[in-house]
Amino acid sequence: MASTTPITLRLPYGSDMHVHLRQGDLMEMVTPKIVQGGISTVFVMPNLQPPITSVQQALAYQEKLETLAPEVTFLMSLYLCPELTPDEIRLAAQAGIVGVKSYPRGVTTNSEAGIESYTTYYPVFAAMQEVGMVLNLHGEVPSDRDHDICVLNAEAKFLTHLQAIHQAFPDLWIVLEHATTREAVDMVKSLGPTVGCTITVHHLELVVDDWAGFHHHFCKPVAKFPHDRAALREVIREGHPRFFLGSDSAPHPRHAKENAQTCAGVFTTPLVMPYLATILDSFGALDRLRGFACDFGRQFYGLPPHPIDLPLDYPSIQLARRPAIQDPTDSVNNATYVVPFWAGHTLEWRLSL
Amino acid sequence: MASTTPITLRLPYGSDMHVHLRQGDLMEMVTPKIVQGGISTVFVMPNLQPPITSVQQALAYQEKLETLAPEVTFLMSLYLCPELTPDEIRLAAQAGIVGVKSYPRGVTTNSEAGIESYTTYYPVFAAMQEVGMVLNLHGEVPSDRDHDICVLNAEAKFLTHLQAIHQAFPDLWIVLEHATTREAVDMVKSLGPTVGCTITVHHLELVVDDWAGFHHHFCKPVAKFPHDRAALREVIREGHPRFFLGSDSAPHPRHAKENAQTCAGVFTTPLVMPYLATILDSFGALDRLRGFACDFGRQFYGLPPHPIDLPLDYPSIQLARRPAIQDPTDSVNNATYVVPFWAGHTLEWRLSL
Repeated sequence: MASTTPITLRLPYGSDMHVHLRQGDLMEMVTPKIVQGGISTVFVMPNLQPPITSVQQALAYQEKLETLAPEVTFLMSLYLCPELTPDEIRLAAQAGIVGVKSYPRGVTTNSEAGIESYTTYYPVFAAMQEVGMVLNLHGEVPSDRDHDICVLNAEAKFLTHLQAIHQAFPDLWIVLEHATTREAVDMVKSLGPTVGCTITVHHLELVVDDWAGFHHHFCKPVAKFPHDRAALREVIREGHPRFFLGSDSAPHPRHAKENAQTCAGVFTTPLVMPYLATILDSFGALDRLRGFACDFGRQFYGLPPHPIDLPLDYPSIQLARRPAIQDPTDSVNNATYVVPFWAGHTLEWRLSL
Repeated sequence: MASTTPITLRLPYGSDMHVHLRQGDLMEMVTPKIVQGGISTVFVMPNLQPPITSVQQALAYQEKLETLAPEVTFLMSLYLCPELTPDEIRLAAQAGIVGVKSYPRGVTTNSEAGIESYTTYYPVFAAMQEVGMVLNLHGEVPSDRDHDICVLNAEAKFLTHLQAIHQAFPDLWIVLEHATTREAVDMVKSLGPTVGCTITVHHLELVVDDWAGFHHHFCKPVAKFPHDRAALREVIREGHPRFFLGSDSAPHPRHAKENAQTCAGVFTTPLVMPYLATILDSFGALDRLRGFACDFGRQFYGLPPHPIDLPLDYPSIQLARRPAIQDPTDSVNNATYVVPFWAGHTLEWRLSL
């Protein structure tokens, strides 16, 4: 396709399998923007303050979110921690909670309560495997200068943990979240059908140069080498069904980004589908947009599939290319000011709901 | 040495073979702080706006600097560019100008006029070799995502250029500036006696994690893996005489660092020797402080050596360890507020002039 040809795409609403919806003012700003970004199903991260470690907390949070965006399906998760017992897992599954998120200690926002050893949690993983809950892994080991571990190789060095958990629990559904490296892509591809992988919007675009000095592009895991970005793009281009959208959209107030020490996180929720259309189009993978953003995640999580051919009255979104150019800055106009990804740039695709 | 033993060191003033003294208010703030940091000889970078490309400009700049700090020896340099002819090189040498700095285009602050090809400059290098001027290389190639080049491997990928220039001009004095990688250390060690290498204060301390989100630690070249830092420390620990201090101290006003897009540069001038004593002490190389910071750079640049045993009346500095702890923030109290390296931390070594 020539990049200047007008074109309109009709798709089902997207499913974003990794979002941070926060609390308080930020939650109230972000949650209604899910649909604005062309998304109707989200997997919600539990790293609040305090973290969500009980069924009761998760359901109370879900209720708040549903009040703010009744049209969205919220898939809830618990934060893996010593308080989480096999009994709580069974209760969680009965209550419709979908996953358990594991953060290694100290690697990202609100991960101070993260875990230090996976084998400790094997009884919990066994219960999860039994009831069909998903284990969501933040796949980085903590930095350790004495052992040459830093933010650049923390993901690659995590992958043996993923492999070991999968070998111990081959029927446990596991998602390696926000993959950023060729090594991660290769590892997930090499594992069985119960192992999936989310890829963010921003890691399909950024490399290390883009966050070196540019604070709105700083996130964890950090964007890495061009060859890593190429591997993420390639696995989407090939339409691999175990790799799907998890934006890791992580809003921080502007003052927490534009300062001496930046919080990690890129905010993409208000424009997820236009960003993705623009980026996938740029590397010749527009035909993979629906699989990556709308179908594969639902399939992995066992949600009802969208029909292959959308009936005329099926809930859907439309994406239109040029001349409908849009600056992401316009997507955020509110008191809790959060700067969205690519503010000041232009998106070649615009969304009509 | 136990780290709590009080101890006092007497050393000659240091020679800092890579400093940015800027222009205007910043120059007036920074230049008098050279001596405050225990330094009496500096090699001055020419990346002003506009860059220093003529003898006349260099001498005018030198005069301003000498007015601000008459006790300091300023070694001046020109900015490599198409206007720089072999004739200008000969005039520069006669005028006492010491070096020519080469910036690849676009890799750091004010490098828009940087070079794109080294062979173009071979007639200039031949004249420099003839008159004994030093070629100072910013050793990074420009990033290029299509060829997997980014800020992390830009230095390693530059090293074949260093090697080629050295092979073509074996008697040309060349300094690879601000080395940050094991590859750079290995390459410089492998080359002949006319090739030296500067190492900054901050690259002896920082790794990539320290600038990921921490803007006062962001500089070019960026700090890299722990194993790279280890290589820099090791070459100092072994007392290699072709590796010497070049702080690359690069002040930026606070508002240019604490914002959405940070200027590259770490400011160390006001406390160079206390920083170095603290850092070298931390990795067991305090006995190498004098060689690295006071002697080896002078030797490479052909400056008069300090006596091995300092006479009682020889100009010197004293460094004292605990309990003389100092916060670098106190080193800067002025209108043009620049945040120094390690502000808010404590230095275990204090300087008495």
